[in-house]
Amino acid sequence: MENNQIKNQSITRQEDDFAQWYTDVCKKAELMDYSSVKGFIIYRPYGYAIWEQIQNYLDKRFKETGHENVYMPMVIPESLFNKEKEHVEGFAPECLVATQGGKEQIEDKLIVRPTSEVLFCDHYAKIIKSYRDLPKLYNQWCSVVRWEKTTRPFLRGAEFLWQEGHTMHASEVEARTETLKMLEVYDDLGRDILAIPFSKGRKTDKEKFSGALETYSIEALMPDGKALQCGTTHYFGSGFAKAFGIQFQSKEGKLENPYQTSWGVSTRLIGATIMVHGDDNGLVLPPYVAPIQIVVIPVAANKPGVIPAAREVASRLTKAGYRVKLDDSDKTPGWKFSEYEMKGVPLRVEMGPRDIEKGQVVIAKRNDGTKVFVSLDDLEDKVKGLIKTIHQEMYEKAYKYLLAHTTDVHNMDELNKALDFGGYSKMMWCGDRECEDKIKELTNATARCLPFNQMGNGETCPVCGKKASKVVLFAKAY
Amino acid sequence: MENNQIKNQSITRQEDDFAQWYTDVCKKAELMDYSSVKGFIIYRPYGYAIWEQIQNYLDKRFKETGHENVYMPMVIPESLFNKEKEHVEGFAPECLVATQGGKEQIEDKLIVRPTSEVLFCDHYAKIIKSYRDLPKLYNQWCSVVRWEKTTRPFLRGAEFLWQEGHTMHASEVEARTETLKMLEVYDDLGRDILAIPFSKGRKTDKEKFSGALETYSIEALMPDGKALQCGTTHYFGSGFAKAFGIQFQSKEGKLENPYQTSWGVSTRLIGATIMVHGDDNGLVLPPYVAPIQIVVIPVAANKPGVIPAAREVASRLTKAGYRVKLDDSDKTPGWKFSEYEMKGVPLRVEMGPRDIEKGQVVIAKRNDGTKVFVSLDDLEDKVKGLIKTIHQEMYEKAYKYLLAHTTDVHNMDELNKALDFGGYSKMMWCGDRECEDKIKELTNATARCLPFNQMGNGETCPVCGKKASKVVLFAKAY
Repeated sequence: MENNQIKNQSITRQEDDFAQWYTDVCKKAELMDYSSVKGFIIYRPYGYAIWEQIQNYLDKRFKETGHENVYMPMVIPESLFNKEKEHVEGFAPECLVATQGGKEQIEDKLIVRPTSEVLFCDHYAKIIKSYRDLPKLYNQWCSVVRWEKTTRPFLRGAEFLWQEGHTMHASEVEARTETLKMLEVYDDLGRDILAIPFSKGRKTDKEKFSGALETYSIEALMPDGKALQCGTTHYFGSGFAKAFGIQFQSKEGKLENPYQTSWGVSTRLIGATIMVHGDDNGLVLPPYVAPIQIVVIPVAANKPGVIPAAREVASRLTKAGYRVKLDDSDKTPGWKFSEYEMKGVPLRVEMGPRDIEKGQVVIAKRNDGTKVFVSLDDLEDKVKGLIKTIHQEMYEKAYKYLLAHTTDVHNMDELNKALDFGGYSKMMWCGDRECEDKIKELTNATARCLPFNQMGNGETCPVCGKKASKVVLFAKAY
Repeated sequence: MENNQIKNQSITRQEDDFAQWYTDVCKKAELMDYSSVKGFIIYRPYGYAIWEQIQNYLDKRFKETGHENVYMPMVIPESLFNKEKEHVEGFAPECLVATQGGKEQIEDKLIVRPTSEVLFCDHYAKIIKSYRDLPKLYNQWCSVVRWEKTTRPFLRGAEFLWQEGHTMHASEVEARTETLKMLEVYDDLGRDILAIPFSKGRKTDKEKFSGALETYSIEALMPDGKALQCGTTHYFGSGFAKAFGIQFQSKEGKLENPYQTSWGVSTRLIGATIMVHGDDNGLVLPPYVAPIQIVVIPVAANKPGVIPAAREVASRLTKAGYRVKLDDSDKTPGWKFSEYEMKGVPLRVEMGPRDIEKGQVVIAKRNDGTKVFVSLDDLEDKVKGLIKTIHQEMYEKAYKYLLAHTTDVHNMDELNKALDFGGYSKMMWCGDRECEDKIKELTNATARCLPFNQMGNGETCPVCGKKASKVVLFAKAY
């Protein structure tokens, strides 16, 4: 079937300059705009609507797993922030600090939250007294600020939208289970609605979160061969709890410190979705997060009956529960095809006089450009099938790319070659920070994660040659 | 029917100290807690869940009326903030200002948004070019900061959660229509889910928003006789548009400035809901916003079959779409009755061995303490009816209070008496700022609004005695 699209010439081709392609798509698909504040972006309706779909999915999953939403202050007094030493050292260099309230200087300066562990701990210290008060399973939807020098839309910003879960448990095993459970929820998000196969595993000590005992992450592989960390869950043990004096009386009547976790994903997921699926014609949105799932475009709209027929089709699909846009504006069909292709709308329904005669519509799939004729009698059924198919095809394409770009390496030479090819280098690792540092120094790649339940293809660390039992994925990363 | 509740002694009685009653309820019902930052509160799960219900209702209404959600930066450069003079003067005294990013001093200081008109205008100036780009109907859910000296939970805080709509239109009439349309949506919110009868109308020039040509508000009357402004909508004309250079080419090819509106409600609505409906036993929550609509409490839970039967009832009601909590903890029924009464849960379902024998449950209504026996066969139907009835009864009770506390006044003597009695003084007003100021000076009451379509009961202004054609509601206010 012919795909008579008009190429949108204003988007840089991926192979010419992937970074520029990305920026072009962000701007031209109207996902975001730059603001007057350096590093702070404006989340435009089409970008924000993707975030709303992610929120809907996760908020439901969080509530099903017993979590409750709260809202903490957006600022943290400096004195409070300084209570957990490692944490402070990790965040202090990138804090935005408020020093003036009304006409007054603020004595205990206020740090705009870069993350809210200390606020949750401060609150938990007041409300946790007994084992009966545990677990506390709180989540917060908000924005955080990190004063970054180099920013890129959705990927790294001075302010981004996210959720942060902060939980307290009576036992270590319960807290560790929570840390892994929420990692699974994030992984499901990729599989169920973003059509992204995440690689998940534990972070090395070098890469873990400031103050955490263990950090786990989901990582996605981008078409330029670089990995993007897409979400993390942390197990803190009782470190913060001790620093903040959080104690509870156990069933046995002893005073104990609870065990803590935190976990978050952010609008960076929008960046991952853009890059994993996009092509030279622009965005390709996975159907379950697409703000517009189906665009209906009348062809030869001046002919009698075309617009009412298109309206009827749009109305039927809206009733069937889809997010539908009917574009009956006076722009040409060619302009519209190109526009909604660039905006990544999963399905385009075309309808002209001949289609009306035949009682059919033409439906084009954005992900591969194929077209099918669909009888109006079967409309809802066929669309349901197509939406499902597109999601599966997009997931499988990304998964094949991931497999094709995961290379087993056994020595430094293979590592270098694999990193040049792009993607993950899967290797054994002795576990020493020194070897990890050396790879970073020589190749600029970092350990992305130690994946679960994976057999290594070798027995020695490629760097030092020592016996090695850990499997690790190295990659260049965003 | 007997209401054998155990009074919760720790809440101050309303007539003893209404302000203390309010604070007690906020804290003890676990709606909020104080944080380590003065004036910034923590929205705890039970309080935040009320906000989520308000958000669900409004977000749906906003989208149905064509609005789109966006997210703007949380900070505004001082230079940008200074562009609209009246607006700056209104907000400058209560701004939180960030001056330090990482290790650097920030040259153009960043104001934490107290409201986002200037950010929206700055963006609109870039994206509005033609009449085809209009209207722009944007809304944002976020928090804002106002550096207030005196704060009270939900009513006045350094940081509060809100939504702010900001729209741009090609014609004055369209913008004015939007301003009134959104006021109606807010009014509907009170009628449909908060069970609060708002008084709505136009603000006097003295009371309107900094930079607006006209402000409209919804006002609610509290049981202490004071009015609480619960939401506002503003018509700006083209003032900001001119200051920010926002221009569009009209259909006729002329360059014109668009017409602007903004509108917002905040977590202050939670404060209104607490005060309008609460009683000496604590919260009384309107059923459509209550985080827990029905609590199921087993009585004589140690008797065989009681807990499974209670679980079955809870499960049936959950399936019927209600927010249900089964409390099968080992606390006494008396403690539980008192606890959920204090938390304002609209319906309490009790179930003991004798009820199981008879195939019934006992259902108590929080709003008036009455109890009914309901056959298990009719459970879902009866509960549906009771929920609806409670909402109506609560609305009507509040409406009767409003009518009983709206007094027609014709002279200063009547005004003083009416204000002492509490509630609104409804009077004619000549429209002069001088008379408005004089009332404030003598009584501390302010003009709440000029209600729509109301006939005044008189012909002269009570202050100056001049011919008067405007009807105005005066009241002491929060």
